[in-house]
Amino acid sequence: MRSDLDHVKAHGLQILSPEGNAHITEVHCHHSPADIGPCDLVIIALKSTSNSALLDLIPPLLKPNTMLLTLQNGLGNEEFLAENFGGHRVLGGLCFVCINRISPGVIQHIAQGQISMGEFNGLPQSRTRAVAAEFRQCGVPCEVAESLAEARWRKLVWNIPFNGLSISAGCIDTETILRSAPLESLVFALMKEIIETAGKLGHPLPKGLAEDMIARTKTMARYKTSSLIDFIEGREVEVEPIWGEPLRRAAAQGLEMPKLEVFYQLISHAVKARTP
Amino acid sequence: MRSDLDHVKAHGLQILSPEGNAHITEVHCHHSPADIGPCDLVIIALKSTSNSALLDLIPPLLKPNTMLLTLQNGLGNEEFLAENFGGHRVLGGLCFVCINRISPGVIQHIAQGQISMGEFNGLPQSRTRAVAAEFRQCGVPCEVAESLAEARWRKLVWNIPFNGLSISAGCIDTETILRSAPLESLVFALMKEIIETAGKLGHPLPKGLAEDMIARTKTMARYKTSSLIDFIEGREVEVEPIWGEPLRRAAAQGLEMPKLEVFYQLISHAVKARTP
Repeated sequence: MRSDLDHVKAHGLQILSPEGNAHITEVHCHHSPADIGPCDLVIIALKSTSNSALLDLIPPLLKPNTMLLTLQNGLGNEEFLAENFGGHRVLGGLCFVCINRISPGVIQHIAQGQISMGEFNGLPQSRTRAVAAEFRQCGVPCEVAESLAEARWRKLVWNIPFNGLSISAGCIDTETILRSAPLESLVFALMKEIIETAGKLGHPLPKGLAEDMIARTKTMARYKTSSLIDFIEGREVEVEPIWGEPLRRAAAQGLEMPKLEVFYQLISHAVKARTP
Repeated sequence: MRSDLDHVKAHGLQILSPEGNAHITEVHCHHSPADIGPCDLVIIALKSTSNSALLDLIPPLLKPNTMLLTLQNGLGNEEFLAENFGGHRVLGGLCFVCINRISPGVIQHIAQGQISMGEFNGLPQSRTRAVAAEFRQCGVPCEVAESLAEARWRKLVWNIPFNGLSISAGCIDTETILRSAPLESLVFALMKEIIETAGKLGHPLPKGLAEDMIARTKTMARYKTSSLIDFIEGREVEVEPIWGEPLRRAAAQGLEMPKLEVFYQLISHAVKARTP
């Protein structure tokens, strides 16, 4: 932990949730990975714009078979870990959860809370299922994805339009987006573009996925996406993993994603214009 | 004239321009077309969102050969006039000019000032050249376009991205748009999409048009587009003629304009969200 460390040591971790609040008084938290030492499993939940910090953070945690599981957003995080620490260690997971850290040591849980995870290199192994079982044992629904890449694209189908519009349509939450007919139709059109591209890249996504996601989001409480909160609070926004990298992956295969391209440029501008 | 009438009758019309200011003391202005009576030529400069008012405004001005010249923005205005008053009367023109009405009777001229005009039905006629000659005699550069439709699409190549981004990238002027690398690349990509579509619709535009327009805009003084000023001041924005109608014309021929579609929806939302 960084800035929250002292607070959490003194007061524990609070989780505010529609499913009931929780107060965890004894948290195993550390300031430096050297205080922890080698682990079987390292779960990486750092914002991906800070990935370069992992070059110092991870080495003290490694032994020969240490697994690195990234739960970060967007595309490119597994590749970064593989390049620097070896692809055999790398697993990736997607968190379908609406949470915001609202003050030091206080997490607000708004909706959902499941994980989908898989291997960076190829099919699930016994270790993949073992890690998933650990999550389930802690009460976190966790499924093993046959294809991590497919799961990542599936999550982008939600993140690209909702995180994108939450910033570029004037700092609005999911409910406001879906109450606007033009924006709802834009969400749908963007989802279709992503689903079509994912299919062409070899990651076929289920029919009706866009409709399902929109319907599910309508049943959720209003949610400010993590990108919007980062944007509003002047923190770095994960522009490249969410919008830039998918565009480049498509372009590398000669595929255009014109709608995504518009959002990528609008958000790149908005983020630059914000910080002088 | 509507709200400006009394002011202009009392104080004339002022034009502030980098090419020298002008003060026109005696303006032939009227409140109602009935005070004017039948004319040879009616120049229509009303904002196109008020086109329904033309149904009352135009009839008192008509005699059998009265020409109707629309200098309005976007697509659909000639069609509206043709439907209601007969296509044989209709001419259209495009104004390449940066002007803002900054207060009653005061026009600020920022850059440019030429007109390109043509016939709604087919090729230029002798009357077309006669009207163009009238403009030139008044000191307004005016050229006759062989194809009005082509000229309209050409102007959209500028209006769609610049008017669009001026609103949807956070209320900014042309200079701010072109000082942002992501927005400049978006202007270019959008222009390419429009040029390509115009070509497929039978209105081939010159090579290098996008590059030329961007270069020319960079040499202009910073300009708030008319749509941005309408947006900021709470007036109606010409969403359909500039963004909606080109999209529908393309769709009617089975052509997609995905980048334009994004802007159409973003601007439709912004305009609706602004007026509660």
